[in-house]
Parts: sequence; structure tokens; C-alpha cells
Amino acid sequence: MNLPGHLSVANGHLLLGGLDLNTLADTYGTPLYVTDEDRIISRFREYRDEIGSRYDRVKVLYAAKANGNIAIMRTLAREGAGADVFSSGELELALSAGMSPGDLLFNGSSKSPQDLALAVEKGVRISLDSTDELIQLEKVAAEAGTVVPVSFRINPALEVPTHPKIATGLATSKFGIPAARIGEAYREALGCEHVTPVGIHCHIGSQILDVVPFAREAGVLATVAGDLTDMGVRLEFVDVGGGLGIPYHHDTDRAPSIAEYAEAVVPPLREGFEQIGISPELYVEPGRSLVADSTVLLTRVHSVKKAHKTFVNVDAGFNLLIRPVMYDSYHEVMVVNRADEPPRDTCTITGPICETGDILAHDRELPAVVAGDLLAILDTGAYGFSMSSQYNSRPRCAEVLVKGGRAALMRRAETVGDLTATMVLPPWQA
Amino acid sequence: MNLPGHLSVANGHLLLGGLDLNTLADTYGTPLYVTDEDRIISRFREYRDEIGSRYDRVKVLYAAKANGNIAIMRTLAREGAGADVFSSGELELALSAGMSPGDLLFNGSSKSPQDLALAVEKGVRISLDSTDELIQLEKVAAEAGTVVPVSFRINPALEVPTHPKIATGLATSKFGIPAARIGEAYREALGCEHVTPVGIHCHIGSQILDVVPFAREAGVLATVAGDLTDMGVRLEFVDVGGGLGIPYHHDTDRAPSIAEYAEAVVPPLREGFEQIGISPELYVEPGRSLVADSTVLLTRVHSVKKAHKTFVNVDAGFNLLIRPVMYDSYHEVMVVNRADEPPRDTCTITGPICETGDILAHDRELPAVVAGDLLAILDTGAYGFSMSSQYNSRPRCAEVLVKGGRAALMRRAETVGDLTATMVLPPWQA
Repeated sequence: MNLPGHLSVANGHLLLGGLDLNTLADTYGTPLYVTDEDRIISRFREYRDEIGSRYDRVKVLYAAKANGNIAIMRTLAREGAGADVFSSGELELALSAGMSPGDLLFNGSSKSPQDLALAVEKGVRISLDSTDELIQLEKVAAEAGTVVPVSFRINPALEVPTHPKIATGLATSKFGIPAARIGEAYREALGCEHVTPVGIHCHIGSQILDVVPFAREAGVLATVAGDLTDMGVRLEFVDVGGGLGIPYHHDTDRAPSIAEYAEAVVPPLREGFEQIGISPELYVEPGRSLVADSTVLLTRVHSVKKAHKTFVNVDAGFNLLIRPVMYDSYHEVMVVNRADEPPRDTCTITGPICETGDILAHDRELPAVVAGDLLAILDTGAYGFSMSSQYNSRPRCAEVLVKGGRAALMRRAETVGDLTATMVLPPWQA
Repeated sequence: MNLPGHLSVANGHLLLGGLDLNTLADTYGTPLYVTDEDRIISRFREYRDEIGSRYDRVKVLYAAKANGNIAIMRTLAREGAGADVFSSGELELALSAGMSPGDLLFNGSSKSPQDLALAVEKGVRISLDSTDELIQLEKVAAEAGTVVPVSFRINPALEVPTHPKIATGLATSKFGIPAARIGEAYREALGCEHVTPVGIHCHIGSQILDVVPFAREAGVLATVAGDLTDMGVRLEFVDVGGGLGIPYHHDTDRAPSIAEYAEAVVPPLREGFEQIGISPELYVEPGRSLVADSTVLLTRVHSVKKAHKTFVNVDAGFNLLIRPVMYDSYHEVMVVNRADEPPRDTCTITGPICETGDILAHDRELPAVVAGDLLAILDTGAYGFSMSSQYNSRPRCAEVLVKGGRAALMRRAETVGDLTATMVLPPWQA
């Protein structure tokens, strides 16, 4: 199987960032997420440099929802990244990680008055999703006695080749202002006393493996930027969102490089801006393509059952990695302690959750697996732990960060005590 | 809309257990799960009495995965319920709730050596899912110097009319021992020194609205019970699992009553037992049908957007209730503070999560809804909070229990501090 440079095989074991994953599992227990910090840094720099070399006013906003661990955000903050935050929680975590309020954009289609007030208080720009939200923000900003810079998220009505649950730019999506109503929304914002429109925001989806939709989106944004400038909006930023995919099927997926992505997106925007005579900042919001392949999920084999198929029962299920069940998504699987053995059996990797659907991987050719073996589920740095639950009353697992030959916890494993920490007995039961 | 007796409308507001849900939302904040304790008790007694009147050795094991709050389990423990537990966490919670080890069964297709050791230590019976697991349990039990009573989960290879992700008794399911190998598994167990087979366990799925599959399952179990008795197994219990559905569509679903369920399941088993000449305990494992309709999820409207559709943006999403997204499941929606107003608009109820799929309800006829209104998502007591996550860095909401006109927290709302409680900064980042 094709492996990226930070994964390697030595003495029959799989290594991440040069560290033996078998040893890490023994040290920290399983299940265990393990992330290579340097891989994230290298992907971030590729974004910054490839876009920066094509347009000199660029800001890379990490899509914090992909992986909300503060250590990951701090890694990116130190490199100069900002963040696309989607909740008050993400906003606060980004600030704790050392990001500056001016490098954040508060996105989302359903913000509470408290969310809006927090963004205003911290001086974070807001992307609005409806004129109803504009009216509420005007109220909140008036109370705070300030003027809040905003963008609207526009719905480009573009079809994109990805899972429908994460195709966010369809005409039918819940996100954004429909094309026909964009002018109206910005006019309403221009009329506000405490809100001022300074940006355009767009996002077409996630896990997209073709640059053409991004180029189309850039074209739409250049046109909208012209219309808004004509209308009197002084654009300080244009945010193209994120969505670049990664090759989850290592040997058969073809994912565009960040350079190819930049070459598709930046020139049409740059040329549009030149024609209009503006030079706004260009925001990009990568998430998955920054962090997904930095991480493996280690899971121990509890038992092997020959039934309708060969079921390999492991200790991680959709409580820790919901993507295979929720989006029918594919992750490569390797046997960490038999990384150089040839395939011997067709195995289905099943989690411990009480649902038939709790299957991490279907019909994989693996070396002969027995109880006690260790599996690595690859490319789990994005939408892995961040979507985890305590379903079936299973405490969530630890996360380890590795860097330059060192390893350290970035999240300890939960205990049953963590499950009950927020529970309270009603007085009549006490 | 048809409402069960514990829900009512007064002065234009929706009430649960006689308490105004609008007031509870103001007191405790939103989102908020609110559960009626007496409704759970009444459903439990129906199971106990309807099955008990048809066969006198019955044990009702609550499927703890449906709702793992200790207050719910304590309510059931006080009524005499045991529990079907699927993890060490569920086992420990059930004991904390006051259930006795002899009233628990440790189920699951993927148990760790630590899970097995905990069950052995606490004296909890184990349902095994493979002969590989039997071998491991024999080892664990030998170390503990004891003999452990077990059942095998058998796969009845029955088609059932429910969502494929929760149809657990299909021939292709990950669960259970295939029919052709049941004899072999029990023979192997009979040969063990530290494990003794005393039960049969089966489960055919979840949210089943027809009693016929349950009657078929009972027939299969009676046959297997005869075969095993012939083989020399002394059966102490036969566990038919759970799976009875509820009418999520209040006006169009027809769900069997617990009496109809009992009438389908018990007589074929009772007659089978009489023919064989045994009188094992009969275990049933209801989850959803005990707790689902006891609970509503209250969610506040943040904004209303007229786009492709009318989107009603609320503060609860699939972070708190994943069923609609994961299983395309349906929950009735009511406007708590306009509970007596006529329908005015077709609304799609959208959560705050950054995914197109984050929709709690599609195209519902609701009274005219505006920002600030309060919605109730009905029938959310099972697989609601128990499957919740902190996705998008959203702290999880509180849960309130009501009983006899009183209300009290049974879980406090999380804060951002709870999100970071388990995070650790690696030394090189500190």
C-alpha cells in the first residue's frame, strides 16, 4: 500500500513519525489516536506558500471542527494560522490555543444571541447566514455600542462530487443566502448602523477530489465581488471556504495537490479582483486536508469469529470513529505488528457497539489476524475524535501527539468517572 | 396530533408530566432533555405484568444503551429491573444505580479481557458471541479460580422489517453464532472447566413494529432449547432480547402493545419449555419501548431563513440527537409556546452543526415560527443523549427529570471547561 512519508515499516511494525506504534499502544493503551505534528505543519506551509505565491494577501483559517484538540490548534497557531470557528466553544478554544481574534471568522447557520455577543465582545468577524441573523446581530452590536464587520455566506448553487451529507453548496442546502437574494441581504446590511459588510464567504463541500468545482466557485465569487463593489460594499476579504479531499483509498484515489488546488482557485479570483480594482484578503478554510492523514487510530483485536464472514472484533467502534457508519467512508487498515506480512484472509473489522452497522472496514485483505493483534485505521485525524461519543457508556480514548521522535499525551483517556461527572441525582432519588 | 397521556396542552403551551415545558426551558436553558419518570415506571410495569401473567419466571433487563443516565437506571432498579449491559461502563453504572449483579447480563460481540475479568469479579453472567471469546473467558475464569455461567448469543438468521443498521439478527450480521455452529459452540463450552453454559441469548433487531418476527424468534429459541437440553445443557435462562418499536409517527404508525408482544412471544416459549420439561427464567431486554416516549428534547429557534425551503435554525443538532441523520428517523415536532395554534408553514428544522445533513426534521407543518420560539422534539428518550457528541466543540446539554409535579436536574449542562478537561499540552508546547 502507498504510504505517505510520515508512515513507515521497520522490523515488521508500523511506525508513525519514526515511532513504533506497537510500543505506543503498549505505553498508552488502546484504543488510541496518534498524530504526527510535523505532518500537519508541512501541510499548513504548503497551503500558505502555494496560495501565497499566487496572491500576496492570504490568510489560512483552520476549520477547527475537523479536530478540536488545543494541541493541534496551538501547532497551527504557532505557524500563523487563524481558524474558521463554528461555535462559541471553537472560538474559545482557538483563543486559548493562541490565535488572535482578528484571525478568526465565526461561521454557522444557527448562532444564538450569546454566540453573537461573544464574537462581538472578542472582536471576531462574523459570517452571517440569513437576514434574520443580521437583524439579531444589529441588536446585539447596538447594545455593545460597536460596529461589527461581517460577511454573508452565499450559496453558489453548485453540484459537487461528494457525499450528499457534506455537499454544502447545493441550491437545496441549509447553508447560505441564495444567489437571487444576495444583493438584498448586502443592501440590508449596508443600511445597518452597527453592522458593516466587509466580506464574502462561501463553502461548497468537503472531501472533494476534483479542482473544477473550486474553480467554478472562484468564478462565482469574482462575479459576486464585482456586483457588491458596484453596490458600495468595500470588500476586505473573500473567503473561498475549504473542502479539498484526501486519498482515503491510498492506491486508487487521485487527490489534487495543494498546488493544483491553488492554481485552480487563485488565478480567477486574482484576475477578478484586478478587473474590479480591489485587493481584499483571500481566506481559505482547510480542515481535512490539513490534519486527516497526520493521524492513525490504534485498536486492539479482542476476538476473531468465522461466521457469515471473518469478523475481527476490535476495541474501537463508531463511538470513536463514526465516518464509516455515517458516510460509508473508507479508511485503510494495517496490522501494526504484522506490517510486512502478506495478506491471508478477507476480514471485516467490527467495533464493540451494539449495532449491526458498527463496522469500521468491510472485506479487507489482511495478514492472518488473531486476538491481541493491533490494527491501525489510517487517515483519522479529521472528523475522528471530534465526532466521538460515549455511546454504550464507553469512556473515550486518549490522544497522543508525536514530534521529532518524542511522544506525549494531548488528551488522557476518560474513565467511568468521566461518564458520571455531570450526572446529578434528583432529590427524590437521593 | 395524537399525544400519549403524559403530554398535554394547556394555555397554549405543551406540558410534560403536568409541567409547562416553556417554564422548564426558561429555568434550565436550552437545549434540554426532559424526561417523565412515571411514564417509564408505567411502561416497565406493563412489561413485567404482561409477560409475568403468561409465564411466572420472568426477568426484565433494561437495555442500558438506550439511556445511560443513572437516574433512569435507578428508577428501573427500584422497580426490580435488571439490565442488559454492553460494556464495563454500563455494568458499573447499573451497579451504581442499585441493580444486583445477578440481575445483569454482560452482552457484546467484542469484549476485552478486562471486560471479562470485571464481569467475573462482580458475578455477572456473560453472553458470549464466539468460541474465540469462550477460550479467553476460560482463561480469565481459571485465573479467578471460578466457574462462570454463560449463554451464547445465537444468530437466528431472521429477516426483520427495520433499518439495516439496527437489524441484528440477519444471517449476515456481526452478532451471534450461526445456526449451523450452535451445537459446536455449546459442546466446546460443556468441555470447559471454568465456564458453564446455562442460557441462550438472542436479539433480532430494534424498532420492530410487527410481532410476527418475535413469534418466529420464540419458535427458533424453543427448538434450540430442546436441542441443547438433549445435548446436556441445563438451561437456567432463555433471553429473547428486545426490539419492540414505538410509533414515532404518532398519527400513522401502528405499534404493537406490550400485551400483544407478550402474547406473541411467551406462549410458544412456554409450550416449548413444557414439552422439553424445563422451566428456565425468561429474560426480555426492552430499551426503546421502555424509555423513548418518556422524553422530549427542547430546542430554541435562533433564526428563520426563507431560502430553497423555510429553514428553522435551532440550537440542537445531531450533536445531541443523531437519529434523524444516521437512520433517517422521524420524530414529531411541536412548538411548545404555540401548541394550540394551527399549522401555517412547511418548515425544515436545522441544527447548528457544520454539515448539510444536520436536519432534525424535514418539511413539517408548523404554526408560524419566529426566532425565540421553543420547539419540542418528541420521543427522544432512547438513543438521544446516549449517542450525543461534542462535535463542533459544543458542550452537551442538561437533562431534567420530572415526577409528580416536581422537576430536577439529572445531568447538568457541560461548559467549555468540560471540553478541555481531558486535554493535556505536550511538554514541547507548554
